Amino acid sequence: MIDLRSDTVTTPSEEMRAAMADADVGDDVYGEDPTLNELEARAAERLGMEAALFVPSGTMGNQIAARVHTDRGQEAVVDVQSHVYKWELAGFAQHAELQVRTFDAHRGVPAPEQVEAALLEEDLHRPGTGLLCLENTHNSRGGLAIPPSELGDAAAVARNAGVPVHLDGARLFNAAVALDEPASAFAAHVDSVMFCLSKGLGAPVGSMLVGSEDFISEARRVRKLFGGGMRQAGVLGAAGLYALENVDRLATDHEHAQLLAAGLDDVSGVTVEQPETNIVVADVTGTGMTEDEFADACSDAGVQCSGFGDGRVRLCTHLDVTREDVDDAVDVVADVVD
Amino acid sequence: MIDLRSDTVTTPSEEMRAAMADADVGDDVYGEDPTLNELEARAAERLGMEAALFVPSGTMGNQIAARVHTDRGQEAVVDVQSHVYKWELAGFAQHAELQVRTFDAHRGVPAPEQVEAALLEEDLHRPGTGLLCLENTHNSRGGLAIPPSELGDAAAVARNAGVPVHLDGARLFNAAVALDEPASAFAAHVDSVMFCLSKGLGAPVGSMLVGSEDFISEARRVRKLFGGGMRQAGVLGAAGLYALENVDRLATDHEHAQLLAAGLDDVSGVTVEQPETNIVVADVTGTGMTEDEFADACSDAGVQCSGFGDGRVRLCTHLDVTREDVDDAVDVVADVVD
Amino acid sequence: MIDLRSDTVTTPSEEMRAAMADADVGDDVYGEDPTLNELEARAAERLGMEAALFVPSGTMGNQIAARVHTDRGQEAVVDVQSHVYKWELAGFAQHAELQVRTFDAHRGVPAPEQVEAALLEEDLHRPGTGLLCLENTHNSRGGLAIPPSELGDAAAVARNAGVPVHLDGARLFNAAVALDEPASAFAAHVDSVMFCLSKGLGAPVGSMLVGSEDFISEARRVRKLFGGGMRQAGVLGAAGLYALENVDRLATDHEHAQLLAAGLDDVSGVTVEQPETNIVVADVTGTGMTEDEFADACSDAGVQCSGFGDGRVRLCTHLDVTREDVDDAVDVVADVVD
Amino acid sequence: MIDLRSDTVTTPSEEMRAAMADADVGDDVYGEDPTLNELEARAAERLGMEAALFVPSGTMGNQIAARVHTDRGQEAVVDVQSHVYKWELAGFAQHAELQVRTFDAHRGVPAPEQVEAALLEEDLHRPGTGLLCLENTHNSRGGLAIPPSELGDAAAVARNAGVPVHLDGARLFNAAVALDEPASAFAAHVDSVMFCLSKGLGAPVGSMLVGSEDFISEARRVRKLFGGGMRQAGVLGAAGLYALENVDRLATDHEHAQLLAAGLDDVSGVTVEQPETNIVVADVTGTGMTEDEFADACSDAGVQCSGFGDGRVRLCTHLDVTREDVDDAVDVVADVVD
Repeated sequence: MIDLRSDTVTTPSEEMRAAMADADVGDDVYGEDPTLNELEARAAERLGMEAALFVPSGTMGNQIAARVHTDRGQEAVVDVQSHVYKWELAGFAQHAELQVRTFDAHRGVPAPEQVEAALLEEDLHRPGTGLLCLENTHNSRGGLAIPPSELGDAAAVARNAGVPVHLDGARLFNAAVALDEPASAFAAHVDSVMFCLSKGLGAPVGSMLVGSEDFISEARRVRKLFGGGMRQAGVLGAAGLYALENVDRLATDHEHAQLLAAGLDDVSGVTVEQPETNIVVADVTGTGMTEDEFADACSDAGVQCSGFGDGRVRLCTHLDVTREDVDDAVDVVADVVD
Repeated sequence: MIDLRSDTVTTPSEEMRAAMADADVGDDVYGEDPTLNELEARAAERLGMEAALFVPSGTMGNQIAARVHTDRGQEAVVDVQSHVYKWELAGFAQHAELQVRTFDAHRGVPAPEQVEAALLEEDLHRPGTGLLCLENTHNSRGGLAIPPSELGDAAAVARNAGVPVHLDGARLFNAAVALDEPASAFAAHVDSVMFCLSKGLGAPVGSMLVGSEDFISEARRVRKLFGGGMRQAGVLGAAGLYALENVDRLATDHEHAQLLAAGLDDVSGVTVEQPETNIVVADVTGTGMTEDEFADACSDAGVQCSGFGDGRVRLCTHLDVTREDVDDAVDVVADVVD
Repeated sequence: MIDLRSDTVTTPSEEMRAAMADADVGDDVYGEDPTLNELEARAAERLGMEAALFVPSGTMGNQIAARVHTDRGQEAVVDVQSHVYKWELAGFAQHAELQVRTFDAHRGVPAPEQVEAALLEEDLHRPGTGLLCLENTHNSRGGLAIPPSELGDAAAVARNAGVPVHLDGARLFNAAVALDEPASAFAAHVDSVMFCLSKGLGAPVGSMLVGSEDFISEARRVRKLFGGGMRQAGVLGAAGLYALENVDRLATDHEHAQLLAAGLDDVSGVTVEQPETNIVVADVTGTGMTEDEFADACSDAGVQCSGFGDGRVRLCTHLDVTREDVDDAVDVVADVVD
Repeated sequence: MIDLRSDTVTTPSEEMRAAMADADVGDDVYGEDPTLNELEARAAERLGMEAALFVPSGTMGNQIAARVHTDRGQEAVVDVQSHVYKWELAGFAQHAELQVRTFDAHRGVPAPEQVEAALLEEDLHRPGTGLLCLENTHNSRGGLAIPPSELGDAAAVARNAGVPVHLDGARLFNAAVALDEPASAFAAHVDSVMFCLSKGLGAPVGSMLVGSEDFISEARRVRKLFGGGMRQAGVLGAAGLYALENVDRLATDHEHAQLLAAGLDDVSGVTVEQPETNIVVADVTGTGMTEDEFADACSDAGVQCSGFGDGRVRLCTHLDVTREDVDDAVDVVADVVD
């Protein structure tokens, strides 16, 4: 079975497992886990920010950020296709009592005018804007890699109005590798960043929330409230450190995605846009199958992908997918469609 | 001073004040205020629903409805220009922990396909839809009177999917009078209605929330939680009963609005769309003034109106505005623009 | 029927109704209701505080105060028998996300050591204290009138620790009259006060929230969120002004309570403690009846009272209870017990 | 340094690390992690309940349980010394909008009459009781091991009234080993149990929430909302499985606690109650030192313990504490006090 549903399915490599088995650990709730402390220092350094916090999931990182940046009853401005809006169980409303104001932007990043139009100043009747949240790479729009300057143009409008900006960078390193930019080039434009050690980087568990010392200090307390404080988390931190040292391997996933896209686009009835990172979105309406029928048929034939809405499926390359797997996957799909 | 800022500024008439002074009252928290009990019975009857509840404001009525209809963490589908979204301080998020999903519809009522597209089924990652909220007349879109059938087409999609529909009918009777339909014709398509006794109906305070017995029974408890339970509220209820018996007078406001619109449209630089009820929206960009400059200049000259965004001002007719006031207001505006 | 269930059942007098009928009103959401503005100014002056806000109920006043004074996730320290804890539907948790820490104090006011022991300093794992809430007169402990010095001793401990103090003074003027102190003598020790215009003061609807300019300014916004903003609320405000000018009449209720208590205490099987204000608590266990049986029997015989827990009933004197009513009520109870 | 501050400081053993390194993993958000699935099955079986869920911390487990069992605005009945009340950042109020009603019980378990007295039936003004939460072993009362029958007597009162009971069993297996009862004997009396794999059982991270199929199915969704869903969590699950197979080792900790208590009690100025599990509470007021001075002095001399309030310190035995450590610790304390 070739599993292209998501890059979340990656399993830790032998080397990563060895790093975990050897990890020097302590009680992180007491701030005494040396491996985790090192990971947090490295993550902050990598993004050019002051401090970082290890969290069990990207969702928790995003939700903590929203809660720390805002007061209840404010508005959060987000893309209508963003992960925080679609897939986090209305957490902005439930955890932070924020009203969401959505924009629908080409490539998921609002033009400065869109940000301008979305910002509200608080008055007696009206919530003020408390947060702008951006996403990069943008998952639901097909793994788009947004350049730092484009993020910066949108973020600047908010920050000039005193509104903090959070970057959901679950796959930030995919953008960094694809655009050949350091991660810090993106972080320079925002107030906080969440990035995942799991997904393409291959760690089994964990994400990093990164920002100023004050922000992270408050975030640590909210993490406790959410039940995200873990004890000898260094066993996970060791995997994270290993992942951070092997970011360049994402380039391979991107090459595989190119090959996969090209191969699938040649299949009759399947149309694929040029992928920008490791996410390939294929329109299968031309096959006469619904996306679910297509995904089921592929799965029966040994290739797993995900329904993506509007007659499309999503296929992700990741570290457990080889060049051969890509070729095989194209063959399987071609057979299925025939 | 001719005050056209809003129909909320109406003051109780002599007759209404007399009714209040004579009201037979009791402790409504014990359910013993005869005037309020009568008002609630009449409101329910008028809308063809089982039960009704008196609340201090339309905002409280809408917020109670959202809370009773939904579970926390669901989505509420609303017009991006609706009152509940723009002017109620993010109450859906704060009181009911709902995530809002907005549509942007011609005349503020979504086409059935828009409703269809907005509805979500709950799964492990995704909130389900808990409420569709409609508004009639639609204030921020210019006092539009939406026919029952149009409301019904939108509401049916939600209700067929098991999603309740609330109608923010702050000015429902304006729609009813304008379209010559009974209020019950609108209520027939939804699960709950809020309408205001203040505004055009002229009562000093109060709105009604109307729905099924079960809904109102829960709403009564949430009203207590919100601090909306009042004691000898029959003094207000008497005004409400008087207002309900004098609904037809809204036709006069609508005639005045027609005259006002026609008069203003003749003023150079001012463009007015044909009003449907008592709200007149005038585009003043042709005058070379911003909406705020225009409103200030009119106010200095004796006519008050409200900024409405995008170079427009809003002027409302109501029971304290006479035919002469309308003529005078047009003259004043013409002078101001000259 | 002589209704001694509560002083909330009072109906407005002829003079009060006349004041309401003559009230000069405007739109209070715009801050333009002259009667309400005057009432708010008078209430603030009377308590020696900077500003005041009219709210539809005491519950809303208390809940707004808790929300304005605190951050979510803090603790509120309250008497286990207080109204805010027992009768406001867990509002502190629902509206303000506060954890309640209760004390159980003789007369409902904690000794300074009890306050000291209840205060927490926030750390990584522990909520900090955000509010101390006191009550005077203390309803559930029998209408006790707490002297300003006693309130002050408890409040000082909190305030010295930076914790604000709110006074639920639903019946503050009963305490003031009973102790012959100005209301400002109580307010001097706390950061905010809520008092009711309804109850013994006889207004049909409404309570005042009083505090600093900044506090009231925020409270006004939270009132809007709760749906407590009302339009021509001056019709109610006129009743409130009348009530505020007739505070001394509470002395009559207190005399009646003394007579009632003395009379009931002479009834065999009924034991009554000396009342301090207008609330009489009678232990009826000696009659062989449960409190509910007792209340039902009295009601059948023409006197209404309320169950009060632990074999006790509560009887309140108020402006609709005359000296003759008191004598009759004693006779009725004597007959019932016989 | 001998670290007796808490049993949370344990680090994974060689064998446990090996198990983690070899773990067969998958994506648990898809339900495909075989190790985690096995752990959840074993945990449920061990407690005699239908289903279980892995969560990153005990706090998250308790908070999810409260949220799933209750409706917002209900009351939760808890010991005033319980972990959920003292150390979880007002989570019941913040996550579930519950009002807490505390009891103060000998050994932390309420007598049936105390439960009876605390239960409220919901009415128009009053929250109803939604949860009884018990704790075993009881940390803040000194690691007390509560027998199943005693838990059962308290729980039965609640359950007979239709109120669910949650057991915070962070150290449930300490109670089970100390009392020589299977864990299922405790679980039989309640609706849900949280127990920790970290702490005495030695896993680096993780706790289990256990209950009915329906309860766990809802809990899984709330875990996602909290950001507690993790991907290849089997690396942690393997440690948990190892821990569950080595529960009997807790007996050693308990023996060490006995020895430690006896040794410390012989130190002049130190008074120790007989420990019931692995927690030793020493009253050091007789030494003339405050608890903080005492803890600092010990720490300087090589033994770490925690302040516990009221002039007491807490010392925990755990798997990284040997018999020799215990003897050394006693010697160190004796030297410090001299």
